[in-house]
Amino acid sequence: MTRVLSGTRPTGKLHLGNLLGAIENYKKLQGAESFFMIADLHALTTEYEKQTHIADDVTEVVLDYLASGLDSARCVIFIQSEVPEHAELALLFSMITPIGWLERNPTYKDQLQELKGKDLHTHGFLGYPVLQAADIALYKAEKVPVGEDQLPHLELAREIIRRFKHIYGKDVFPEPEAILTKTPRIPGLDGRKMSKSYDNCIYLSDPHDVVDKKVKSMVTDPARKRREDRGNPDVCPVFYHHRLFNSENSETVARECRQAARGCVDCKAEMAAKMNEFLDPIRRSREAWSKKKTEVRKILDQGREKARQVSRQTLQETMQAMGLKK
Amino acid sequence: MTRVLSGTRPTGKLHLGNLLGAIENYKKLQGAESFFMIADLHALTTEYEKQTHIADDVTEVVLDYLASGLDSARCVIFIQSEVPEHAELALLFSMITPIGWLERNPTYKDQLQELKGKDLHTHGFLGYPVLQAADIALYKAEKVPVGEDQLPHLELAREIIRRFKHIYGKDVFPEPEAILTKTPRIPGLDGRKMSKSYDNCIYLSDPHDVVDKKVKSMVTDPARKRREDRGNPDVCPVFYHHRLFNSENSETVARECRQAARGCVDCKAEMAAKMNEFLDPIRRSREAWSKKKTEVRKILDQGREKARQVSRQTLQETMQAMGLKK
Repeated sequence: MTRVLSGTRPTGKLHLGNLLGAIENYKKLQGAESFFMIADLHALTTEYEKQTHIADDVTEVVLDYLASGLDSARCVIFIQSEVPEHAELALLFSMITPIGWLERNPTYKDQLQELKGKDLHTHGFLGYPVLQAADIALYKAEKVPVGEDQLPHLELAREIIRRFKHIYGKDVFPEPEAILTKTPRIPGLDGRKMSKSYDNCIYLSDPHDVVDKKVKSMVTDPARKRREDRGNPDVCPVFYHHRLFNSENSETVARECRQAARGCVDCKAEMAAKMNEFLDPIRRSREAWSKKKTEVRKILDQGREKARQVSRQTLQETMQAMGLKK
Repeated sequence: MTRVLSGTRPTGKLHLGNLLGAIENYKKLQGAESFFMIADLHALTTEYEKQTHIADDVTEVVLDYLASGLDSARCVIFIQSEVPEHAELALLFSMITPIGWLERNPTYKDQLQELKGKDLHTHGFLGYPVLQAADIALYKAEKVPVGEDQLPHLELAREIIRRFKHIYGKDVFPEPEAILTKTPRIPGLDGRKMSKSYDNCIYLSDPHDVVDKKVKSMVTDPARKRREDRGNPDVCPVFYHHRLFNSENSETVARECRQAARGCVDCKAEMAAKMNEFLDPIRRSREAWSKKKTEVRKILDQGREKARQVSRQTLQETMQAMGLKK
């Protein structure tokens, strides 16, 4: 059976982009050998200056996972910082990882540029891909579901694993391969990629009326200025969501838009209703899980133990290969 | 009671320089609150390309510790890699440590220069002081016995601890202070500082005849070319050791050397005999401990448990301060 690992940085509640871009993929990969972690240590690399919120965000992501249909009987859900082997293997990998590889990492350069307000010139942020390589290698994962932006990190993980094999002559870890997600770029309210940092998200936990209101504010085809102008659904974020949540009617929607037979206000209301229909069971499930704190903690405790069973064994093998243990 | 932490990198058996420069100091600091670790993870920063020897070196250092008189009833002796909290706190500290601090560290620059044969441009070697800061902070150590060359690292540890307090507003760790050792520079066979990398050491485990032979090969006052030349004990490594191991006769030795009343051959033989006298009980104790493998392992197991009791608590407090735990 193929071993799979992936994770989510807990930087707040999950939005539709996370659900359709990642979680839906996780659900397909559920099986006895899939590990899904809430990567709170990774969140620290960029969020280290804020305090006391990461633990809350972890709780939100766990609720979002469970509400979206991740089933703890069919996959291992755990919190990264509760499994010390992640930090241990990251430290060991750190010893063999050339700084140049990390400095040349395109995501590193992009993020330094993009997150200019934050002081990211830290040893930990530079080592982000080392920690990620450790996450994957600890579970000897063969497949890693990732977005396109994470491909350079995965390639670095493969290089670190190859270097380990080269130095120690031991084949402890398989080289992980990417599973690229099918819907990589869900548009947000402003038409850009849905992302917390753009503040353009619809969250899984947003109530009915908030979704209505947000969809009302969504941008449409910018060239369609008046009701009687013909629209172009191909560039309209609202239409993108029609295809996702109202696919049975999407051809009609597109045709009427092109003929100016429907206005944006009605079109949005129809889409919002469908989106809410889709979100209703998730919201109900989320509400129910949020009342079962003990049960949620039990799921995480079991996840931690299952994760440690595997990771402890891998760490032993790693230490033996490196000469730290006999 | 003052909390003390120090450690030894297991890069082979300990020599007289280690004993007189560090271990003798440890012995004076023994008490319920002193922690002495065998820093095998630190050894990896420079020795990562060699394999399968670190575990052996750890065993040698443990025997040297015990034979030199470290008493596990009065201090905690443990192996760094057996306490996962070291890697965990290092990762957390790594998040708040600016790369510039590490790059400007004078020891880092010196070592890159000195150990040119090794590829030390790794993320782990750059992070050496971060790991060291974590070692100290985990035990909330207030005093750290160090050699002068380690002072910049200790200063970095203090800076990381101050930055932690500044960012999170929590006073989890005291700022550690150095205890400088009294005999910082024991000369080796060639007159340079005794150091494994110069291959000029007398080891605690060297047998009687090896010590005799090594002392015979020791350099003396280079200006004293013939037996009848007057010597200058102040520049003679052999005389340095007379003062350490034959202090009751050292004035006579010095006077006779200056008057050319004693030759170097006899002078060395006298010193070697005294050095062997000093080493005899250590060698006997080492021999005895080397036969008690189960007992040694028990000491290390107890040490690990005592170390984890303290370090686990500190890690919890750290995670709470950083918002990873409630």
